[in-house]
Amino acid sequence: MSEPNQRIKFERRVPTGDTHPRDVCTTCGFIHYVNPKVVTGSIVRHDGKILLCRRAIEPRLGFWTLPAGFMEVGETAEQAAMREAKEEANAAIVIDRLLAVYTVARIAQVQIMYLAHLDVPEFSAGEESLEVMLAGWNDIPWADLAFPTVRWALEQYRSVEGVADFAPFTNVPGADDRP
Amino acid sequence: MSEPNQRIKFERRVPTGDTHPRDVCTTCGFIHYVNPKVVTGSIVRHDGKILLCRRAIEPRLGFWTLPAGFMEVGETAEQAAMREAKEEANAAIVIDRLLAVYTVARIAQVQIMYLAHLDVPEFSAGEESLEVMLAGWNDIPWADLAFPTVRWALEQYRSVEGVADFAPFTNVPGADDRP
Repeated sequence: MSEPNQRIKFERRVPTGDTHPRDVCTTCGFIHYVNPKVVTGSIVRHDGKILLCRRAIEPRLGFWTLPAGFMEVGETAEQAAMREAKEEANAAIVIDRLLAVYTVARIAQVQIMYLAHLDVPEFSAGEESLEVMLAGWNDIPWADLAFPTVRWALEQYRSVEGVADFAPFTNVPGADDRP
Repeated sequence: MSEPNQRIKFERRVPTGDTHPRDVCTTCGFIHYVNPKVVTGSIVRHDGKILLCRRAIEPRLGFWTLPAGFMEVGETAEQAAMREAKEEANAAIVIDRLLAVYTVARIAQVQIMYLAHLDVPEFSAGEESLEVMLAGWNDIPWADLAFPTVRWALEQYRSVEGVADFAPFTNVPGADDRP
């Protein structure tokens, strides 16, 4: 987070009025807050199939994932999910509803997963994807999914497919969150 | 974010392989990613009433809010909501389900709001609260709520009170997100 030859000298302490220890600069008092990051993504449906992207980048290069990525400042969570589908699969999508909110606490990520559908039946591999496809349930490469939360989202969606009103899902209790 | 007398010199540009402009240090190449922050909170129910906290801190000191605050690294979103209820209202709560995910893009906040209930019928003002109360619908100080999302959460919850399965809510379309 910082260049080597600067005058910031951090000490770990609980700042006044705070409840958590932070890195505080002893020179200037700067408090280095580290916060969880938000990933947004979606299960994009078309004709009963689901849009999957094979990753062209690390981590998990070559494995299959849902269009998803880090949310940016200045956009809503829904806009972020739409942008990721555009970037990774050149797909224009419509957000239908929220499917799940996961936390991967190990890497301080909150993953907000929507249900969506293709606005127009067009897609192709974006820069971060090797290939993209529409997969039916029997064509999903279960053994080659990039992340556990991709599997969670797919399986949880499958359990409510066709149902309009359901409570959103969260982490699968006891499930390993490591790929 | 930085002390005045250091050697970091930022320029605004799109880093290689990125899609968004960032502040990049011309000395060391450090990329200063700024990400949205996650706020978690909950509508805590007990005997048909809702737990409200009157803020002892800025912003909106003296106004009423739901127990909510910034999520920390190392906890799940649900754990964060439970911690906030403990800190602000000395309340042990049980998370029931997700109510809503809002984005206040203006200040780059994602707000994850749960429905919860008191685990034991005890609460009192924490350090960040002037007072706390259980309010029925007719006792909610609507004119003195701290933030628009507090109103959104309360009104959206009211529209589904007693319903188990409903799609979570998002921003009220067209509503002003400024207090």
